[in-house]
Amino acid sequence: MDKRAIGIFDSGVGGIVVFKEILKNNPNENIIYLGDTRSFPYGSKSKESIVELTKKGIEFLISKNVKEIVIACGTATSQALDEVKKLYDIPIIGIINSTVEYVKQKKFKNIGVMATVGTIRSDAWKNSILKQIPNANVTNKACALLAPMAEEGWIDNEIAVLTIREYLKELKEIKDLEALILGCTHYPLFKNVIENELKNNVEIIDTGEILSKALRKDLLSKNLDNKELNPNYQIYLTDTETNFKNVASKLLGNIVENLKLAKI
Amino acid sequence: MDKRAIGIFDSGVGGIVVFKEILKNNPNENIIYLGDTRSFPYGSKSKESIVELTKKGIEFLISKNVKEIVIACGTATSQALDEVKKLYDIPIIGIINSTVEYVKQKKFKNIGVMATVGTIRSDAWKNSILKQIPNANVTNKACALLAPMAEEGWIDNEIAVLTIREYLKELKEIKDLEALILGCTHYPLFKNVIENELKNNVEIIDTGEILSKALRKDLLSKNLDNKELNPNYQIYLTDTETNFKNVASKLLGNIVENLKLAKI
Repeated sequence: MDKRAIGIFDSGVGGIVVFKEILKNNPNENIIYLGDTRSFPYGSKSKESIVELTKKGIEFLISKNVKEIVIACGTATSQALDEVKKLYDIPIIGIINSTVEYVKQKKFKNIGVMATVGTIRSDAWKNSILKQIPNANVTNKACALLAPMAEEGWIDNEIAVLTIREYLKELKEIKDLEALILGCTHYPLFKNVIENELKNNVEIIDTGEILSKALRKDLLSKNLDNKELNPNYQIYLTDTETNFKNVASKLLGNIVENLKLAKI
Repeated sequence: MDKRAIGIFDSGVGGIVVFKEILKNNPNENIIYLGDTRSFPYGSKSKESIVELTKKGIEFLISKNVKEIVIACGTATSQALDEVKKLYDIPIIGIINSTVEYVKQKKFKNIGVMATVGTIRSDAWKNSILKQIPNANVTNKACALLAPMAEEGWIDNEIAVLTIREYLKELKEIKDLEALILGCTHYPLFKNVIENELKNNVEIIDTGEILSKALRKDLLSKNLDNKELNPNYQIYLTDTETNFKNVASKLLGNIVENLKLAKI
């Protein structure tokens, strides 16, 4: 047993979806969240910048004495996970690997991936999937506007619906599509809209849900889980003048009351 | 007379609107355009990052032997113009100052400004306007989605119309609004949509048009204008795997054929 907190790193408000999922499977854990709202969005940044920003985020969480770190941002995972894993001793889980493991277990072959321009361009999802499932058909769809739209708080208005309809056009045309990975942390905010638009038997994969279960397993196997009740939650942002509170409080309620400024 | 080119620096495709405007008033000038598509969007970045990126862009254009530089990006102008003017000998014009001068001449008092989150947060427009027109009423509206939407090429579809309608809501409620400054280079791409939505006597100010006229005046006054015909145009991007060509060719046609990669 280990009472230290879990650290969650994200580029903005999207990781709050992962935070919520982690709570479900890890209700006793203390959590410290860092949202890099000042540098958001990561999606269109260079690999070099993303690695630099992710390192700063990880170091901030380590300074807060966390026991394990979750990178909730798909772009940061795809561009920086390998680098930061080499640099720090602390266990770091990225949002991609646990999902690819799940897709393999389910024996999916025809897989769609929606993600940011940066993540799609890096081919991180495609490469990770093909490493585990060499005969998979992976169809990528870059969705430049979805993450900014989530940060704006537009997750179910008419504009969001039309935007998602536009982005799903090609994916809808794929015969026998079995699974659609929401490859950016923000996208589960649009899950209902996506489900309505797809209207078929495609499994929509929420990477946060999968990661939360994998994290629970990992903590138990390493005897790092916390058995005490009344966990404590802290949220740090690198820029507090954002729409963060509006979006995050819809998902986490009171937990979002006290936002702290992280100077990194 | 000076045959060297004019340099245009922008964070992406938005500056192509300024490019087009500059052509109208400066038809003999050679032009070298640099779009920092790799680091786009600047709107939500820190001042520090924007200054760093703008410096790199200016240095690239100086290495191409330009005679004068236009910063077409509102965010870069608001956050970095003062710094780069101090650092380099070459004349540098930003997109804000010439527009503020125009607003003053027209004796506008009730002024709206649409711009990116970063530009609005910097209060660059408000401060510049109040310095020239102390009794002005300036109403800011941050429009986080418009620049990414322009880069996506969605400039007149239903999604663009609904998004603009949403962003104009507060501005429409202002009594006696006289002028609306499109404070981000990308926004004139939406000028028709904005005009349709406003449907009143507000003057929509296209900062590129104003800047183009100011540049012409500046070149003539310094005897830096080019009198030769058959000007040459070059477009450099920091990342060429983008939607740039689709959007830019709608505005500039053939000029956009040969895009070059700028390694900065």
